[in-house]
Amino acid sequence: MSDANDGAATVHLTLDEVRALAKAGLAKTGLSPDHVDAVAETMVAGERDGCASHGIYRLLVAASSVKTGVVVPDAEPVLDEPSPALVRVDGKGGFAQLPFRLGAPLLVEKAQKYGIAALALNNVVHFAALWPEVEKLASEGVVTLAVTPSHAWVAPAGGTEPVFGTNPIAFGWPRPSGEPFVFDFATSAVARGEIELHRRAGKPVPDDWGYDPQGNPTTVAEDVLKGAMRTFGGHKGSALAAMVELLGGPLIGDMTSLQSIEADGGRGGSPIGGEFIIAVDPAGFVGAMLGEHMKHAEEMFDTITGQGARLPSQRRYEARRKSLTDGVDIPAALMRDIEKLLEEA
Amino acid sequence: MSDANDGAATVHLTLDEVRALAKAGLAKTGLSPDHVDAVAETMVAGERDGCASHGIYRLLVAASSVKTGVVVPDAEPVLDEPSPALVRVDGKGGFAQLPFRLGAPLLVEKAQKYGIAALALNNVVHFAALWPEVEKLASEGVVTLAVTPSHAWVAPAGGTEPVFGTNPIAFGWPRPSGEPFVFDFATSAVARGEIELHRRAGKPVPDDWGYDPQGNPTTVAEDVLKGAMRTFGGHKGSALAAMVELLGGPLIGDMTSLQSIEADGGRGGSPIGGEFIIAVDPAGFVGAMLGEHMKHAEEMFDTITGQGARLPSQRRYEARRKSLTDGVDIPAALMRDIEKLLEEA
Repeated sequence: MSDANDGAATVHLTLDEVRALAKAGLAKTGLSPDHVDAVAETMVAGERDGCASHGIYRLLVAASSVKTGVVVPDAEPVLDEPSPALVRVDGKGGFAQLPFRLGAPLLVEKAQKYGIAALALNNVVHFAALWPEVEKLASEGVVTLAVTPSHAWVAPAGGTEPVFGTNPIAFGWPRPSGEPFVFDFATSAVARGEIELHRRAGKPVPDDWGYDPQGNPTTVAEDVLKGAMRTFGGHKGSALAAMVELLGGPLIGDMTSLQSIEADGGRGGSPIGGEFIIAVDPAGFVGAMLGEHMKHAEEMFDTITGQGARLPSQRRYEARRKSLTDGVDIPAALMRDIEKLLEEA
Repeated sequence: MSDANDGAATVHLTLDEVRALAKAGLAKTGLSPDHVDAVAETMVAGERDGCASHGIYRLLVAASSVKTGVVVPDAEPVLDEPSPALVRVDGKGGFAQLPFRLGAPLLVEKAQKYGIAALALNNVVHFAALWPEVEKLASEGVVTLAVTPSHAWVAPAGGTEPVFGTNPIAFGWPRPSGEPFVFDFATSAVARGEIELHRRAGKPVPDDWGYDPQGNPTTVAEDVLKGAMRTFGGHKGSALAAMVELLGGPLIGDMTSLQSIEADGGRGGSPIGGEFIIAVDPAGFVGAMLGEHMKHAEEMFDTITGQGARLPSQRRYEARRKSLTDGVDIPAALMRDIEKLLEEA
């Protein structure tokens, strides 16, 4: 989360300034106004929560995605309802944020009406984390589980050749405090960006992060990037990675990570494909007893934090509380790259 | 999975003989006929698939659960529909198998009608694995995800005191071969039974399996059983364990693992509480394109097995093919214990 933080010099910005910068930069890339607005908000959220790699730095990634034709900058997402409790938004090759915005309200409505509902985003370009989406849905009161395949970079347990993407799983649970319980993690052993950081720094990686193209364990970051990463948690993480493929691919009529990297054809673009989100109404089973049962969830959280352990979302919320009042520091080098982007013809 | 396999002497049985034995033994414990039938089938499934610890050996566990009053032997489960896409079965303190049998057909029907549906089993005693249930649902054509809390035995990442149960996650995906893709694993680092095996054998456990009651890493099995186990996969496994607590506890109005072990009051009985199962119609999003997209799933499976890696369910299916023709071998010592049970007044 610190790959935009090399170099000591920083520029101080308020979050409103981050937003204005993100919007100006995204507009410059040629994204249509609705996409600019939706994508800018996830960048602000990343910067606000101390996740620099999902913050304003992503402006450069977005610009490159438009320039290389990986993303359709003015895609107009189309919503339909294939089944009573299912919502689908075809992103038409645009970034995922706008399709999510379009589908989320109906997902919540259906979850409340039927007890459980699901949303599929199809044909979207992923370049952000899932937590802004599950947090948004949990904030609106539904329990949320989201998954998405990516590009085939990760070997299954017992193998050494890529099949899975980094395949994140994200979950959100509404809390009375207004700060939902949220986690979002890759089912790969580490984030791909972490290996890229090691490569750029010329540092070796631990030999259990992945395999070289010949299928041997290696400490050379570049070889893991060309070969295959490992899943977290051995065969269990591998099983979960397969589940993410199935739910976010064939189940919703979209690409597996194997198909996605094939479709990329060596451009090195962000993964294109689907995302699958389940939403459950927490009052669906328990009705009027909701408050009582939410209390039991809080007791569990208290037993975790009471022994000095952190909740998955805790660090982000702490960063957020700080940045909402104090603003954020952006690396000066990144700021120069962004200014260069803004000055381009 | 081999704790019933100590000693070399074995007795050969056909699966029909295993079924007859299971039914006779369960009837002897005082379980009502519908429970006998449902529970016997999971024991046969365990034995058939080479999972001895979930096979006929469980007869002794069931007998003890009845004797100690942990389970209600003649509980009559009650079904209701709290929301259009939600099914709930109150198990009234009986074993989980019969409530599952009662709720499963309506779950499948609702998944097909609404696209997605969920089933909660409440107030049930768990003493079997989840895979027979997700495999059953996947065999009937729905994609299935199932979770259940247990007793608070497992510490969160960053802590050393128990909060979570062993909290399994199970998933099923229908396959054209008729043998669904199924996984079912504990979110604890190892199965609790594995630690108990080490204790009985007087063998040390690896020092990353758990903590003693003072919160120190230990290699003494007994101390881990009294202290806390660890989750698999560090903070990721810990996050998943929390998700299982929330979905299988407060969401469905049932107990967390903390509440379950408190309710047990030191009896050492099987976990009592809830189970949460999501079912998705694989044709819900893709309709007539189902066959095409199922093929992409098969291509992913082929890329896994094609590099010599195993699918999670592969070993069980291989054992099954063998036992269906050849029968199974039961340890003679276990057979004597069962015969003793059958002879009791």
